[in-house]
Amino acid sequence: MKKVVNLDENHKDVGRSAQEQSFTMPFIGMHKTELDTPALLIDLDKMEANIRTMAAYFSTVNAQLRPHVKTHKTPIISHKQIAAGAIGVTCAKLGEAEAVIHAGIRDVLIANQIVGAQKIARLINLAKHSEIMVAVDNAQNVQAISEAASAKDANVRMLVEVNIGMDRCGVEPGEPALELAELIRKSPNVEFAGLMGYEGHTVAKPDKAARNAAAREAIQILVDAKHYLEKRGVAVPIMSGGGTGTFNITGSIPEMTEVQAGSYVLMDATYGNVEGIGEHFERALSVLATVVSRPAPDRIIVDTGLKVLAKEFGIPQPVGVTGVEMTGLSEEHGKLLVSDETVSLNPGDKLEILPTHCCTTVNLHDRYYGIRNGIVESVWEIAARGKAQ
Amino acid sequence: MKKVVNLDENHKDVGRSAQEQSFTMPFIGMHKTELDTPALLIDLDKMEANIRTMAAYFSTVNAQLRPHVKTHKTPIISHKQIAAGAIGVTCAKLGEAEAVIHAGIRDVLIANQIVGAQKIARLINLAKHSEIMVAVDNAQNVQAISEAASAKDANVRMLVEVNIGMDRCGVEPGEPALELAELIRKSPNVEFAGLMGYEGHTVAKPDKAARNAAAREAIQILVDAKHYLEKRGVAVPIMSGGGTGTFNITGSIPEMTEVQAGSYVLMDATYGNVEGIGEHFERALSVLATVVSRPAPDRIIVDTGLKVLAKEFGIPQPVGVTGVEMTGLSEEHGKLLVSDETVSLNPGDKLEILPTHCCTTVNLHDRYYGIRNGIVESVWEIAARGKAQ
Repeated sequence: MKKVVNLDENHKDVGRSAQEQSFTMPFIGMHKTELDTPALLIDLDKMEANIRTMAAYFSTVNAQLRPHVKTHKTPIISHKQIAAGAIGVTCAKLGEAEAVIHAGIRDVLIANQIVGAQKIARLINLAKHSEIMVAVDNAQNVQAISEAASAKDANVRMLVEVNIGMDRCGVEPGEPALELAELIRKSPNVEFAGLMGYEGHTVAKPDKAARNAAAREAIQILVDAKHYLEKRGVAVPIMSGGGTGTFNITGSIPEMTEVQAGSYVLMDATYGNVEGIGEHFERALSVLATVVSRPAPDRIIVDTGLKVLAKEFGIPQPVGVTGVEMTGLSEEHGKLLVSDETVSLNPGDKLEILPTHCCTTVNLHDRYYGIRNGIVESVWEIAARGKAQ
Repeated sequence: MKKVVNLDENHKDVGRSAQEQSFTMPFIGMHKTELDTPALLIDLDKMEANIRTMAAYFSTVNAQLRPHVKTHKTPIISHKQIAAGAIGVTCAKLGEAEAVIHAGIRDVLIANQIVGAQKIARLINLAKHSEIMVAVDNAQNVQAISEAASAKDANVRMLVEVNIGMDRCGVEPGEPALELAELIRKSPNVEFAGLMGYEGHTVAKPDKAARNAAAREAIQILVDAKHYLEKRGVAVPIMSGGGTGTFNITGSIPEMTEVQAGSYVLMDATYGNVEGIGEHFERALSVLATVVSRPAPDRIIVDTGLKVLAKEFGIPQPVGVTGVEMTGLSEEHGKLLVSDETVSLNPGDKLEILPTHCCTTVNLHDRYYGIRNGIVESVWEIAARGKAQ
């Protein structure tokens, strides 16, 4: 049940329930430093710049952008990406697809295998409300989806996932890919839409030349698989792959039709340090922290620990402060080493921390505070937070 | 708004909203392997055994148990711990304290500094509905809480946190601890209740003798601080510290009055491998996963990645299966290496994964499925999940 709330220009508020709106209303118009912490902030100008930058790139190449929802998990951001030119979205999980389809998005790729009767039923139900597409790498899975789609008179597009060197999911290229494509072509209510491969083992190599070489080698496996199928009479309309770290490598390969980049919209310190990527995008995401203790001149403790900041890609660091380094994150605390004892951060003071992995950090939070010129402009529920099924 | 639902003996259902109950009702009575995944499971017999084991230990020593909510974040589990003899609960965050106080628990320690006007206002509001106690290590913070408590005619008990070697929060022992205690004693509407120290740098040392020596050395600092205050006429009624890894070390020291252990109730692989701890408690927590791909005889991919399983203490492993080892966790996937190719795990098959850190893993999930003899007996909303403020 939605309620129309009369908000002025600076207080935009889109697509949230009346309950969520009434909860978040008090924050609108506050300065970001007035927010209690930990709080997840998006700098809206920076995020919008990232969307424009990526859209501009994809206006110059054959491939189109199908940005990943797993990073931001929030329908309004997907809508902004589509408004800027993206052809649809990519999801990791059915729960993410449900969130964006319920918010009106129709062209959705779930770039993973959907396995098991309960999930296949949800997939088919979504196919009644969208043009859904799913990755497959297994004949029994193709048959199960085909049977469920037939029973409900639905249609599901399928991309055959090919292992292009990451050694995660995916059939091997050549004959195994061809066999699965042919099975899809002869199965009812499913459609062979093309091939997908993820060069995930290459996307975060910081050295540009090394990343370029590794990504091209991986994508060539997918291109060869396409040629293998085409020579045997199987058309391959969609060629999908790529991530933020390879958007301008994979995106520039003429055979590729879709790129699944996600992190570019928010960015983090890890992608920020990737040569050839970091300089194109702004760091739009941060976690606002409060100093809770300064027990010694060289030690500051903040209220942002592992439950609000992921650390699998390294310990996040504060932005806009010099002379302090975060040296450890425990469950509820961050510990900062002060190298310049004139740093005047004391209990109650706030600082912003730049995540090292935006996707897993976002998944720890319930909402974003959208900030423009320092002021809270919007509060967005992270609709697919925790939707791991 | 709650609704009374008529559930038979096997379908116990306590303390949840009508909305949550209607959502979870369909799961009650299912076999755990029928649950869709990822799903967080508690083996109820094992959890109850852990509660009994810990209660039995604390019936033999001077210290009492004040179990930590940060592990399970779920009021019904706190109530079970209190019913077994715990004197109250420990919380990491105000949001956790709100969750348990709203569920009727009154004796609550927030074992961290509560800093900033918004949080202090919430603390004082809770003091109107509970006997709250909070850790402090800073004079300005004591004064701010005292002023806010005075303005609302509330009372807040305070433990002076002492740094006992972890070098996180806490004043130094001796004169700084005495000064802060004396400030509390002369400030209105706050009460000096005692000292707290956390030997967090010792709790996970796997070697029993090394852990014992390190924990005793740390706690001795707290005991010395107590004597320092008492010699100067300041009584120290409460001495609080300890964790699961030191429950039977810190808990056995006669000067200690309270132990804050949390993980013991659910356990994980890390504490399970701590000598002198692991053998006392059952591994009650697991994450149910589905095999989504078996692209090669030696490789299995499951649907449990970093968004449902924490890995800061190591990569979690499957339980009850031999010949497979989880070698990596990416955002949405777990990769298992199969050393015995006769392992017959294929897409759609399910397996249970034992977390390596129960506290941060629980915080990734919205609910527990409570399992007894393989059957879903209860579905518990993790009320303080994500309550990081």
